[in-house]
Amino acid sequence: MMRVSFEELYQELLRVLLKKGFAEERAQLCAKIFTESSRDGVYSHGLNKFPIFVKYIDKGYVRVNALPEKIADFGSLERWDGNYGPGPLNAHFCMNRSIELAKEHGIGCVALRNTNHWMRGGTYGWQAADAGCIAICFTNTIPNMPPWGGAERRIGNNPFVIAVPREGGHIVLDMAMSLFSYGKMGVTRSKGELLPFDGGHDSEGHLTRDPDAILKSKRPLPAGYWKGSGLSIMLDLLVTILSEGRASSVIGEIQDEKGVSQCFLCIDTEKQHQPGYVDQVANTLLDDLHDTPPLHEGGAVSYPGERTLKTRQENIEKGIPVDEKKWQQLKEM
Amino acid sequence: MMRVSFEELYQELLRVLLKKGFAEERAQLCAKIFTESSRDGVYSHGLNKFPIFVKYIDKGYVRVNALPEKIADFGSLERWDGNYGPGPLNAHFCMNRSIELAKEHGIGCVALRNTNHWMRGGTYGWQAADAGCIAICFTNTIPNMPPWGGAERRIGNNPFVIAVPREGGHIVLDMAMSLFSYGKMGVTRSKGELLPFDGGHDSEGHLTRDPDAILKSKRPLPAGYWKGSGLSIMLDLLVTILSEGRASSVIGEIQDEKGVSQCFLCIDTEKQHQPGYVDQVANTLLDDLHDTPPLHEGGAVSYPGERTLKTRQENIEKGIPVDEKKWQQLKEM
Repeated sequence: MMRVSFEELYQELLRVLLKKGFAEERAQLCAKIFTESSRDGVYSHGLNKFPIFVKYIDKGYVRVNALPEKIADFGSLERWDGNYGPGPLNAHFCMNRSIELAKEHGIGCVALRNTNHWMRGGTYGWQAADAGCIAICFTNTIPNMPPWGGAERRIGNNPFVIAVPREGGHIVLDMAMSLFSYGKMGVTRSKGELLPFDGGHDSEGHLTRDPDAILKSKRPLPAGYWKGSGLSIMLDLLVTILSEGRASSVIGEIQDEKGVSQCFLCIDTEKQHQPGYVDQVANTLLDDLHDTPPLHEGGAVSYPGERTLKTRQENIEKGIPVDEKKWQQLKEM
Repeated sequence: MMRVSFEELYQELLRVLLKKGFAEERAQLCAKIFTESSRDGVYSHGLNKFPIFVKYIDKGYVRVNALPEKIADFGSLERWDGNYGPGPLNAHFCMNRSIELAKEHGIGCVALRNTNHWMRGGTYGWQAADAGCIAICFTNTIPNMPPWGGAERRIGNNPFVIAVPREGGHIVLDMAMSLFSYGKMGVTRSKGELLPFDGGHDSEGHLTRDPDAILKSKRPLPAGYWKGSGLSIMLDLLVTILSEGRASSVIGEIQDEKGVSQCFLCIDTEKQHQPGYVDQVANTLLDDLHDTPPLHEGGAVSYPGERTLKTRQENIEKGIPVDEKKWQQLKEM
């Protein structure tokens, strides 16, 4: 497996973004976000997603220097229009704004419309937690999953993020509403393996662990069957209403994903608790989790974000693993 | 099956609550909440839960006339202490307060500690939606589920509610983090049936659909495996931190459930959108769902809360179905 340093990956991404017309500071932040996703082990939304990001710039879906614009202000809650700017930059901006609102009002919420794919959702959870805030954020997507009981893709996998700041490493849940991502299914298929659990329905309507059958039927399973389906529906409703933006069904009117809606909610913890209080609660909970007897010999219980920290450390020391083809493709851009 | 009228059930519950020392208005509200849960088809948290509620009053866990008390005020966000009062009354009060904050600041959040089981979580979603608010609320519980990869119950099933107001009937998701409730598993076992999907691990650590094996191993499955487990962990962290209350692990120090923590988040929609806007977004989304071709012949896709409305209508017309034993038990209280 090939590894490159953080700096190498960052510089290559930066070069391409500048070539695509990003203003310098915006190119830097965007390159940093992509590089950090790969560094943290979320390869699918780091380097591996970059070619699609560039393709969407070339298609005119992503306007590299469009800035978000405030549409409405309701006190602790604001509505912004992303003007079809780069998803990671719009999301980073709106999370920052939500942090500011939380510092002022205790809680802040920014709803964002007409933005683009934010790449790795966890990015904005880590960002809020770095600022001492609890965050809840979510996005809608193109319809890529059937609702429970349905045969056709009508709902998004609508990633949902919850972050809690902690001195020893933030606790960050970053989950899509589908049980397995298309990426995971593709990788499993290419290895000729089966998914560890039923991951969707095949074209005959039977549950299956065969990723090929699911990729063909386009019927991935919501996490928790009807539960993930219901939660996906609610998240789409929430982002659409709050931002007065486009719902998944509207986003699905064209083949590509463009102009999604997002929500960034922050709660300040620094003013609201004695110093060290949040860490103490978090550490007690994590100790209890780590202390749980494993179901299977040699197993372990981990907390959301735990693997991220380990991977980050390893990738900082050894370099970031890259897919050679994608790396070559990047260098030739 | 035996049915009783709303008024009959309400009056019986009211009689017992007054006998237990509830002040009159509090007894009325509490009886109403229990009756409405049964009326809406959530029998497990209506009449069927009432005997445990009374038992917890008798044990001194629930203090019938204790009032919630404000502990801290951070603008849009407040922290309250439930003083071990009745869960449904504390929750109803705090959701009302959150609605007030949302009307003032756009968004409001009330964190509540030292309260008791709120019974049916959806109650507070419907309450907020009736006031024209979007609501997100959640509670922790006694540890009743192993975290993903663990063999022992260390996390709660931590019900999570999202509500969106709609003229033709609110959209309300009310989901616990376990795939199946203990109630569902008990009913399935008593019928000698299997669960429709793997619902937990047996004592040997194998996934199983046999409710008896899961009730014995005490290893119900989180919805979406690691996803429901992660979400449960985050919800416990959030309610505990925000309320400075008791975490699931602390609640689990005694056998019974007492002194849980909750969070009530509200977003006003009435000032923030043109009249009719929220309904229009919601109806478009619901139309798209209903229009989805079913996976299996004769099937249908429904939205969260849809079944509630149908059941409510039926139970208003025909009377509320009651378990004869529980009804007899209530009459003898």
